[in-house]
Amino acid sequence: MPSRVTGARVVGSRKVKDQAVLLVAGHWLMLSVAINIGFLLKIIHDGNLGMDWYAFNGNGVAVSSLASYTAEPKPGNDVQIQEKYINLDHGDPTMYQSYWKQMGDRTTIVISGWQSVSYFSDTKNLCWFLEPGFAKAVTRLHNLVGNAETANRHIVVGTGSTQLFQAVLYALCPSDAPDPMSIVSAAPFYSSYPLITECLKSGLYKWKGYTNDFDKDEPYIELVTYPNNPDGSIRDAVFNGSGGILIHDVAYYWPQYTPISSRADHDIMLFTLSKSTGHAGTRLGWALVKDEAIAKKMVKFIEISSIGVSKDSQNRAAKTLDVISDTYEDAETSNESKRFFDFGYEEMAKRWRQLREAVNKGKRFSLPNLPVGKCNFSNRTFGTQPAFAWVKCEHASVRDCESFLKQHKILTRGGEHFGSSKKYVRISLIGYEEDYNEFIRRLSLINSEESP
Amino acid sequence: MPSRVTGARVVGSRKVKDQAVLLVAGHWLMLSVAINIGFLLKIIHDGNLGMDWYAFNGNGVAVSSLASYTAEPKPGNDVQIQEKYINLDHGDPTMYQSYWKQMGDRTTIVISGWQSVSYFSDTKNLCWFLEPGFAKAVTRLHNLVGNAETANRHIVVGTGSTQLFQAVLYALCPSDAPDPMSIVSAAPFYSSYPLITECLKSGLYKWKGYTNDFDKDEPYIELVTYPNNPDGSIRDAVFNGSGGILIHDVAYYWPQYTPISSRADHDIMLFTLSKSTGHAGTRLGWALVKDEAIAKKMVKFIEISSIGVSKDSQNRAAKTLDVISDTYEDAETSNESKRFFDFGYEEMAKRWRQLREAVNKGKRFSLPNLPVGKCNFSNRTFGTQPAFAWVKCEHASVRDCESFLKQHKILTRGGEHFGSSKKYVRISLIGYEEDYNEFIRRLSLINSEESP
Repeated sequence: MPSRVTGARVVGSRKVKDQAVLLVAGHWLMLSVAINIGFLLKIIHDGNLGMDWYAFNGNGVAVSSLASYTAEPKPGNDVQIQEKYINLDHGDPTMYQSYWKQMGDRTTIVISGWQSVSYFSDTKNLCWFLEPGFAKAVTRLHNLVGNAETANRHIVVGTGSTQLFQAVLYALCPSDAPDPMSIVSAAPFYSSYPLITECLKSGLYKWKGYTNDFDKDEPYIELVTYPNNPDGSIRDAVFNGSGGILIHDVAYYWPQYTPISSRADHDIMLFTLSKSTGHAGTRLGWALVKDEAIAKKMVKFIEISSIGVSKDSQNRAAKTLDVISDTYEDAETSNESKRFFDFGYEEMAKRWRQLREAVNKGKRFSLPNLPVGKCNFSNRTFGTQPAFAWVKCEHASVRDCESFLKQHKILTRGGEHFGSSKKYVRISLIGYEEDYNEFIRRLSLINSEESP
Repeated sequence: MPSRVTGARVVGSRKVKDQAVLLVAGHWLMLSVAINIGFLLKIIHDGNLGMDWYAFNGNGVAVSSLASYTAEPKPGNDVQIQEKYINLDHGDPTMYQSYWKQMGDRTTIVISGWQSVSYFSDTKNLCWFLEPGFAKAVTRLHNLVGNAETANRHIVVGTGSTQLFQAVLYALCPSDAPDPMSIVSAAPFYSSYPLITECLKSGLYKWKGYTNDFDKDEPYIELVTYPNNPDGSIRDAVFNGSGGILIHDVAYYWPQYTPISSRADHDIMLFTLSKSTGHAGTRLGWALVKDEAIAKKMVKFIEISSIGVSKDSQNRAAKTLDVISDTYEDAETSNESKRFFDFGYEEMAKRWRQLREAVNKGKRFSLPNLPVGKCNFSNRTFGTQPAFAWVKCEHASVRDCESFLKQHKILTRGGEHFGSSKKYVRISLIGYEEDYNEFIRRLSLINSEESP
């Protein structure tokens, strides 16, 4: 693109005296501009997704590059691979696909054409669109893993934990308050929180992020991601005002990422299938909520905004969660194939080893220190191995780590999206293996190079 | 409840001079209050769903009453049936279940455990979470039925048309405008529109409903439901300002309800699976959008609010839509079982006949006149037979038609929810057959009675 545009400019700025030459040049200019527009349209058409994802993920590069790469990886053909972008911006949990393939038909689900015709799942439940089988599977798995208290909790299902987050905001913010409620979170915070909160310019709530500029004696909402996205730290609420209401995003509190030290026992806890089993495409999350009035208002929000949640997704999720529990509870089957959290733990451990090795090859990058703990579920003692790495570009000349890595065709999400510095990027560790290995190869090469 | 509360008040306000009597009365008051609280807690506990649905549907009666009735209907046992509520408030499309049962395995879908792990469906599509098979099936069915123009349109999939409606509002309302955009619609309008629009007190848009109190030269959005919910009328935009942007909700523009006179060819058209095939539980809708920039902003909204739409639902819907098309295009199979729109048309025609007969038995109720037209799809000429009936209580003594019918244990949605008079109610015609027959029986009885 740049060379073509420059070409047109050169033609246009050529100093011609002769009128005839000028006319010819004018024709060439028009032709050149037309060709440019043609190319531009083609690029926009082919790469429209990339443009579209720009605002969402902070990257302007077409994801389709990656898609074509991952669809047909050609190991050994380095030239071709180096031409492709490796997209580690999103937490797309494709790492888990190989596990579910290896499980064969065990989690296959059959849905008859007459099923799930009604809006209603269970009219006796406060959450009337919650499939009873899904609720049972959620409770069973939490009790097996021991990562969350389920007794005396209401389960509210949502279209991903993203919808549940909005439902909680709606439930906690009174509609008759004179001012919108302040939503705060210590940086670095999950980059979607401000986007969701600000999206509709709601009069109910207002994103404040990491600030002391709000009245802590008035009600405010603090988001606690435990362990934290993007940096994997283990932390509790940091604002100590008397008005604080806490929302705990515990999407990553599973034994493949984090030692399970105790049952999480907070008032409002959000979970998602995407990061627990890896089924992002089913768009399913669940909340465990102590207070009945809050759970009811969350249900109301989901009624108004989507009249419930896909029953097909819920039924499929129920099957998936139950099979995970089965492989642990049924000794016979557990020998046949690897149990889910063992697969996840080993895969994450391997990827973190690879990353640390690549980072330790030079001084260009650094990783945060992550806490070590004993996992009551697996009886292993290990350091947190988060789904994302929070990488810092250490060299003084690199002020924008995302742009720096993008030059090497590695797409990440820059620190500024998380309320932090551009010296940092968030890198997903849970994508396809081929992509991850190629990323490690490139990172090692960059890190081995002399400083610029 | 009222009598108990009054009892407590009487005890409390009794004029007693004697101190001992006062003390005894005080104890009785405390006991009475305690009993009241006990009853209240029990009512809240037992009837929590009913209370919850109150604000959503305007009814305070537990849906569970209906659920237990429809789950195990006992024809012939009139006493028991008369004790049950018939819920015709929601447009729950359970009428269609019997059709899909009769189709056996033809729309059964099998989903493997490793499918739909990624967030992405088609990275080359503007709507990157749109399953290609679903998009194809939508286009194929529209082309078969001839109810909507699909050429040069972007398909945007949503969690029901409810989410798509919000996505359109987000797409059409600039975030930097000084005032929120006015959202208008001629009454009677779909009762969910104001609820959705006002839900988060957005600064982007504001519900105005049916009013002339807005500047028609400034941009405003008019919602056109075609044919209209709740009254089945066929109408176009009614506000003729220069600033009007139209959203067409064409959920009911299918040949079981409405003669298909031509391909709908509007800028923004919203469809839903709930009212076309009857699969409300899959929560799936789609929009046909002419303008690329608007489609992109809609996709952005769905990214932010739910990171896409259930792929399980989309894959299931693709199968369902394709089987409908198959039964029309494949002559051999079409003889085996009834074709979908024939079933729907005949069922709706029967139910409207039953309703007209019941209404014509007396003078208590009236129905609107609905337009007759030729259907290009079926070649039938017929009067619109909407999914809802817009019934008026004609007797002067009945000012609140919803309450009047509720006394007879028929739950409907009152006219005031649609920006209209309480003399009207909206009644769903697309529920289970047993419920509908029982409703017709009760309506006939009421209508045959002498005036009060």
